[in-house]
Amino acid sequence: MSHTYEYPRPAVTVDCVVFGLDEEDLKVLLIQRGVEPYQGRWALPGGFVRMDESLEDAARRELEEEAGLRTSHLEQLYTFGSPDRDPRGRVITVAYFALVKLSQHHLQASTDAREAAWFSVWDTPKLAFDHADVLSTALQRLKGKVRYQPIGFELLPPKFTLSQLQRLYETVLERELDKRNFRKKILAMDLLEELDEVEQDVSHRAARLYRFDHKKYKQLEKAGFNFEL
Amino acid sequence: MSHTYEYPRPAVTVDCVVFGLDEEDLKVLLIQRGVEPYQGRWALPGGFVRMDESLEDAARRELEEEAGLRTSHLEQLYTFGSPDRDPRGRVITVAYFALVKLSQHHLQASTDAREAAWFSVWDTPKLAFDHADVLSTALQRLKGKVRYQPIGFELLPPKFTLSQLQRLYETVLERELDKRNFRKKILAMDLLEELDEVEQDVSHRAARLYRFDHKKYKQLEKAGFNFEL
Repeated sequence: MSHTYEYPRPAVTVDCVVFGLDEEDLKVLLIQRGVEPYQGRWALPGGFVRMDESLEDAARRELEEEAGLRTSHLEQLYTFGSPDRDPRGRVITVAYFALVKLSQHHLQASTDAREAAWFSVWDTPKLAFDHADVLSTALQRLKGKVRYQPIGFELLPPKFTLSQLQRLYETVLERELDKRNFRKKILAMDLLEELDEVEQDVSHRAARLYRFDHKKYKQLEKAGFNFEL
Repeated sequence: MSHTYEYPRPAVTVDCVVFGLDEEDLKVLLIQRGVEPYQGRWALPGGFVRMDESLEDAARRELEEEAGLRTSHLEQLYTFGSPDRDPRGRVITVAYFALVKLSQHHLQASTDAREAAWFSVWDTPKLAFDHADVLSTALQRLKGKVRYQPIGFELLPPKFTLSQLQRLYETVLERELDKRNFRKKILAMDLLEELDEVEQDVSHRAARLYRFDHKKYKQLEKAGFNFEL
């Protein structure tokens, strides 16, 4: 079956930049391409939009098909449409962006992907298409977001230490922060609930655990979070 | 001539939300459609992307063709792709966003547009397609921007009074601001250059004119403007 149009049409794809945080680093989800072009090269998960699905539904479907990952919240990042960005011809891609808790996601490659894996955002293999640009745009967005949205909730486990939270900010912003100043600012926001629990199974002195106050968190998000460091 | 593909493809358009500010109000540029669908209805200027041009080039071309407006700076807003947003079939549109000085633009309709005109953003006619959603997304973006980018430079004439600047913020934010507080905050940013000139041809007491300090403006934009009111 073929499809004929009066004027030439571009193909439209979606691509997903999924960030997760582990003990060491900020990670991005990549898949290894099983088909041409760029067969064997690592890329962002994504694929062609079907005629009867929304762009966001397409992104969600591709994430599940290519990496076995389900995520509720996807945010549109940017649409990349340089005429020469794909060797197959004109392909316009709508990029999406998600933050997930790394520990909750077991990856499983399928369909067009050979393999799916987490890579440090600072040390990815050479990527297919213009995916290095897409990733870099997503990192810029993430850096911007930490200044006006309380993003920790999406990346950290439900209970965390202040050191973990500080490391998140340091990792995303790529610079060290003063510990005392950081704690003062974050606690002043009244965003965290101090728990009657400390870390388990650590060799150093166990630190206090905190969790996000969901109600306060939503209020801050709505009112316009402002966290200048 | 026709174009045949193995899989069905959506058509891709660009649409432009251009904001300008006049003495009274925040305005948006609309064109009256000269062709079906929605013939005679007002819409955002836009049209189909050609195979050999970038998305931004397409937006710039359509603005000039449909409204005779040239603008250097266009920012991508959002891509709208609901399967049923266009009665002609699947059409995905990449929306762009621009701020212009109203006084400098003489409009001239051509190609598919019967007419081009500025409308108050708070009082537009019924729009074609999902353009009311596109406009509302652009207004949200504009409201967000005034908090972290010094946008006045793009919307105001080169020399302006503090009252004009305050009215810009009030119009975009849809609320009244305290005059003394506003002046204190904006002057503290050291963003404005006070001129040895006052308004001409006004019936009330002529107010001092200011202009933006371009160098300072660029620094603030880079460093992350923060203008909480």
